[in-house]
Amino acid sequence: MTNNLQDYSHKRYNILTGEWVLVSPHRAKRPWQGQNEAISNKQRPSHDSTCYLCAGNTRINGEKNPKYEDVFVFTNDFAALQSASPSFSLNEGLFKAKSEQGICKVICFSPDHSKSLANMDVASITKVVEVWQKEYKELGAIDFINYVQIFENKGAVMGCSNPHPHGQIWSQSELPNEVEKKNQRQKAYFSENNSSLLGDYLTQELKAKERLIYQNDDFAVVVPFWAVWPFETMIIPKRVAANINQLSSTERTSFAKAISKTTKAYDGLFNCSFPYSSGIHQSPTNQEANEHWHWHMSFYPPLLRSATVKKFMVGYEMFGSPQRDITAEQAAGRLQNLI
Amino acid sequence: MTNNLQDYSHKRYNILTGEWVLVSPHRAKRPWQGQNEAISNKQRPSHDSTCYLCAGNTRINGEKNPKYEDVFVFTNDFAALQSASPSFSLNEGLFKAKSEQGICKVICFSPDHSKSLANMDVASITKVVEVWQKEYKELGAIDFINYVQIFENKGAVMGCSNPHPHGQIWSQSELPNEVEKKNQRQKAYFSENNSSLLGDYLTQELKAKERLIYQNDDFAVVVPFWAVWPFETMIIPKRVAANINQLSSTERTSFAKAISKTTKAYDGLFNCSFPYSSGIHQSPTNQEANEHWHWHMSFYPPLLRSATVKKFMVGYEMFGSPQRDITAEQAAGRLQNLI
Ligand SMILES: O=P(O)(O)O[C@H]1O[C@H](CO)[C@@H](O)[C@H](O)[C@H]1O
Ligand SMILES: O=P(O)(O)O[C@H]1O[C@H](CO)[C@@H](O)[C@H](O)[C@H]1O
Repeated sequence: MTNNLQDYSHKRYNILTGEWVLVSPHRAKRPWQGQNEAISNKQRPSHDSTCYLCAGNTRINGEKNPKYEDVFVFTNDFAALQSASPSFSLNEGLFKAKSEQGICKVICFSPDHSKSLANMDVASITKVVEVWQKEYKELGAIDFINYVQIFENKGAVMGCSNPHPHGQIWSQSELPNEVEKKNQRQKAYFSENNSSLLGDYLTQELKAKERLIYQNDDFAVVVPFWAVWPFETMIIPKRVAANINQLSSTERTSFAKAISKTTKAYDGLFNCSFPYSSGIHQSPTNQEANEHWHWHMSFYPPLLRSATVKKFMVGYEMFGSPQRDITAEQAAGRLQNLI
Repeated sequence: MTNNLQDYSHKRYNILTGEWVLVSPHRAKRPWQGQNEAISNKQRPSHDSTCYLCAGNTRINGEKNPKYEDVFVFTNDFAALQSASPSFSLNEGLFKAKSEQGICKVICFSPDHSKSLANMDVASITKVVEVWQKEYKELGAIDFINYVQIFENKGAVMGCSNPHPHGQIWSQSELPNEVEKKNQRQKAYFSENNSSLLGDYLTQELKAKERLIYQNDDFAVVVPFWAVWPFETMIIPKRVAANINQLSSTERTSFAKAISKTTKAYDGLFNCSFPYSSGIHQSPTNQEANEHWHWHMSFYPPLLRSATVKKFMVGYEMFGSPQRDITAEQAAGRLQNLI
């Protein structure tokens, strides 16, 4: 790989979305006098009586959580999408809107308030994966649901409103922007090459090795060539599959291992419970052909140079395009040392 | 306008980018236990000897700022883009990159450290507009520059590293993502209708009035139908023009008035110096035809319900699409009362 990429400003192409990221390697050393994040390293108790996600506690709407022992799922008390809302659409000249039905769920990863994926064992993470599969399948089977978004916001700096280990599942009738982009790019590539876009990309990464931070029999973790967030990573299944439903029981464990390795490395980077948003992109659950889909999980962590200085995606990033300083290869190098 | 939009989840279409925003009006009342922003209302001194943007002070690279009296522009000491960097491109299978040359500048709006656009008078803001015009013209005339992005990050919560009133201008050889999207949508509409997409939209907004928060002879300020950020606004020139170069001297003052009204209303909303990123989207400075362009300025402010609670664009928003709770019409209603 040419050295220019490590020295000079350039843009890199995201093959999955068709968009670009601006990379400015020479800028990594600029001084920082801006906002400092308050990242708490305080040890949390295993049970917090004021936490609405802990087992046995009562939620804001009066419902009582069961005394769950591993994973617990419930419908979000303040869901952004509702199943019973009416169907309508608006086409008034240049005002264009369309109703959106959906079901939003919360998934508690563990009854232990003090945990996170980074310090749960592989067997416990595997149970989370099983529930993701079950939810993807069950929600996807509902008539008006065409897409299921599994994600996690971790850390107050990522807008997470409760430190109890949990994620969310928003399922809905329409394909959201990012999914539609990836749908298009993968479909175009598949119809031209009759092979998986992400699969072919992975073959290149496994050969190049410089952005590869972990692999086992079934999964590889890379800092993608087009990474936007400073330490962004992507877990890619080696076997082409459209969605997580197709995971065998061995693959489930391999996937849990990849999640465990990645989140542990993150915590080691700046010695803190590393904040991020993570999410799984996979095939829509509508009736369309999905052989072009290759599912994957991404982590978008905001921290840049310490536990208290994050990357802001603001001005230029909002109006122009995302921008990063350290290169994907530098980020991968640091993560490789921690795995 | 149908009441459904005020009551039920729906998505709205952004005519300029071709993307959607998810709106969940019923969700506005959910409780917030997450991160609180530290918004400082401390009065700043008019001159701060430690500020590298104040007149007469020395910057980190040893350069001394002149004793400027209104607006002062200099090349960013830690520019994300450089003019002297080499040209290269990489096309290695699915690894695709391209060099990017550019010039990044900082523009101090006033020598007075304590000010912001919200409390500068219209004459002083008009001087800022003049400098924006000059920079757009001069940078745009440089051979390798094809686009000039004018923007401001205001407030620590928006990644601004210094409270001295200032903005930035990043000019570059390639069109960034957001500009390319708006270029495409406007071009398609213009070639089909032979009129301005944003002009026709503005005609509809001026008739509907419910999202209009201010107008004068030359400009209108609306909360766009597809607003993403809680109190997002857009300043639209009534006369179709591709870029700010085409502003007459009367229009310059009208534009400064619109900026003044908008930023003052923002400060009144939660009684604080209101953080935001703002930016001007206008025609590229390359040689292509730009009669489809209708320039405009947008404000993306993150605060949601108070000076300390912002909207987080995280998990679902990163993996799916942007999401908001209060509707554009509700936001406009509140801003209308403050103008
Ligand atoms: O140049 P500043 O104000 O230090 O930096 C800020 O704005 C830039 C342009 O939007 C961003 O790239 C930085 O992440 C942000 O902190
Ligand atoms: O549901 P939570 O964790 O309270 O809310 C968080 O995640 C949601 C989904 O990404 C966002 O819409 C909210 O802005 C964020 O604060």
